[in-house]
Amino acid sequence: MDINSVGTVEPQYFTFAAGTDQLLLESGRTLGPVTLAYETYGRLNANRSNVILVCHALSGDAHAAGFHPGETAPGWWDAMIGPGKAFDTEQYFVVCSNVIGGCKGSTGPSSFNPQTGKPYALDFPMITIADMVNAQRRLIDFLGIGKLFCVVGGSMGGMQALQWASAYPDRVRAAIPMATALKQSPQQIAFDEVIRQSIMADPDWRKGNYYEHGQPNKGLAVARMIGHITFMSDQSMEEKFSRKLKNGNYSFTFADDFEVEGYLRYRGDNFVKRFDANSYLYITKAMDYFDLSDGLFLPGVKATKTRFFVISFTSDWLYPPYQSQEIVRLLKRRRIAATYCDLKSTYGHDAFLVEVEEETRLISSFLGNIKASLSPQFVPAGEERLLRSIAK
Amino acid sequence: MDINSVGTVEPQYFTFAAGTDQLLLESGRTLGPVTLAYETYGRLNANRSNVILVCHALSGDAHAAGFHPGETAPGWWDAMIGPGKAFDTEQYFVVCSNVIGGCKGSTGPSSFNPQTGKPYALDFPMITIADMVNAQRRLIDFLGIGKLFCVVGGSMGGMQALQWASAYPDRVRAAIPMATALKQSPQQIAFDEVIRQSIMADPDWRKGNYYEHGQPNKGLAVARMIGHITFMSDQSMEEKFSRKLKNGNYSFTFADDFEVEGYLRYRGDNFVKRFDANSYLYITKAMDYFDLSDGLFLPGVKATKTRFFVISFTSDWLYPPYQSQEIVRLLKRRRIAATYCDLKSTYGHDAFLVEVEEETRLISSFLGNIKASLSPQFVPAGEERLLRSIAK
Repeated sequence: MDINSVGTVEPQYFTFAAGTDQLLLESGRTLGPVTLAYETYGRLNANRSNVILVCHALSGDAHAAGFHPGETAPGWWDAMIGPGKAFDTEQYFVVCSNVIGGCKGSTGPSSFNPQTGKPYALDFPMITIADMVNAQRRLIDFLGIGKLFCVVGGSMGGMQALQWASAYPDRVRAAIPMATALKQSPQQIAFDEVIRQSIMADPDWRKGNYYEHGQPNKGLAVARMIGHITFMSDQSMEEKFSRKLKNGNYSFTFADDFEVEGYLRYRGDNFVKRFDANSYLYITKAMDYFDLSDGLFLPGVKATKTRFFVISFTSDWLYPPYQSQEIVRLLKRRRIAATYCDLKSTYGHDAFLVEVEEETRLISSFLGNIKASLSPQFVPAGEERLLRSIAK
Repeated sequence: MDINSVGTVEPQYFTFAAGTDQLLLESGRTLGPVTLAYETYGRLNANRSNVILVCHALSGDAHAAGFHPGETAPGWWDAMIGPGKAFDTEQYFVVCSNVIGGCKGSTGPSSFNPQTGKPYALDFPMITIADMVNAQRRLIDFLGIGKLFCVVGGSMGGMQALQWASAYPDRVRAAIPMATALKQSPQQIAFDEVIRQSIMADPDWRKGNYYEHGQPNKGLAVARMIGHITFMSDQSMEEKFSRKLKNGNYSFTFADDFEVEGYLRYRGDNFVKRFDANSYLYITKAMDYFDLSDGLFLPGVKATKTRFFVISFTSDWLYPPYQSQEIVRLLKRRRIAATYCDLKSTYGHDAFLVEVEEETRLISSFLGNIKASLSPQFVPAGEERLLRSIAK
């Protein structure tokens, strides 16, 4: 384990809305009890002003950094979260929670439905990005945090960052939406719809009631293969696979002749072991419903002081740079502070997970500037520890 | 029926390799008997020098123009083929044949296998673009045509045009590959592989032996939905659908809330009625195997006199303009006459079927120039008729 790791971490769980005070959803339906799985890294400072909320993407989870006991693979954004990293745990208290609708410890369609004594399956109510954020807000309240220093996320995580800033402008000092959009475009909806149809076409899906029988493996694998194509770029596929053959020759069968075929099959088959098919349906639908193009800081609303850093990636064709530029344009029209960077990358949509070096340089600087403008209110976690030890 | 239509047409059939002289395929296997469905429009001139061979794309067929008796929808490229159109049937004799491996009258996996007395299904040998072209060449021989005036096609049709010029340079005066590539890229292979996996994931596919039971409807529909996303552009989807809702509100169910979802479902469901699932598997594999990047007019081969007009479309992200530019670059390196145009269009890959006006202007001019350089050998069909009537 390198010295820049947050080390061994364990998921925590917060349950709310267990009684009559259920979570009211955008659909008008209610949900409760609601459990959120979450992790934290670094230390909360005395005035609780050093909190960075990291929001995950479609198939992500609360395990953003460090290692679970006995595991060798770190969390999904470990390269960005840790001592001396972009989200420096020597300075910040980082929180990441699994979204509702998910299947990684938070309440979702695979969770126990107290009404029926069985998994919810399709009885789970449809949820939206706003619902995800409202559930997260309860966690932030529970942790006693008034104002987030920063909320950050890529892809669907970026939608949550935008939603946080939109719904709770007074509780977000800075927002970093990456590789994301104000609203899901018809092409994005189209891909999601094909993904859903692929899952629902599998008879093993059983209208969602597959939990006693096992996942709709084939439909879910195809769905994920579609996803993986959209996460990469034409160029990154060329660089990684080109037309390389697995066995040197065309088989003249329907075997996976090309390396790119083998890669997709592997990724698809692997995914079914770790992700619930119904969660994939619910979360893609939440993304499709996302549209802040008229709702992000409506004109007439008192100007927010939230400061934005919008990041896109040149080769990202799933969430193309023009969508980030639409965010920036809208913010500028509302006279909201926004910095924008279109990072040069060949990695496509995956870039937000990969382009660590550039992101670190830019994000450290952005966060540092905000921190500097706040001091002395902002007391870094490290200095606070020092002060405490002196006080003792 | 407008006066620019070729009018009522009927498919014709040509069968060869019925005896021991079977069609030798690139895989080393043989196929026979082989039937090709084809149509012709216009009149062959006296010296048989006015033939334009039109090659169809993945799910196309021999019915490129005019109307089948009793039908109201014209052939798939009717806007381009007819009196006074880009492929002017007053001047040219246009031939279009269904590819082998297809399901529109030519021999393919759904055809009767004389060895078993049942449909071939997966006993059908794997075929390549070269095999398709070799079968077409037999038809052209049968029609008594020595040299094609022009071979044209978009997408997989463009691959055939390139293959014709490469394999039979002395038999192709001009070639117009549109919206195509020298080789299938890993991203294109990836989409094809997901399409195939979607079909094969459907238990109704029955390892290809579904002919007694009916098509794998769901898998094939999902496969076609994926295809349709790749045929359109982000922009054309925005223009056509944006985020328009079918019923004005979010349903908060997995219904097709958005028009784009309804469109894809309709296209998918419709496709299963008209196209054989196994043909989709075989033809996508043929495209994936296509790679002329080292084989198009090898250095040292006597320079071909074929003249090329390469056309791409700005918003085509399935066969992006850079792939057409690779064709042109290779031709130029081989000192072969090539004109190139990247047509501005928002229609994505579909543009080659849609941008009729611009295509007509450019293609008419290109063909006219070649014709002018050939006369008096070239006798347009109309003038020939005149000469004949005088001779009577």
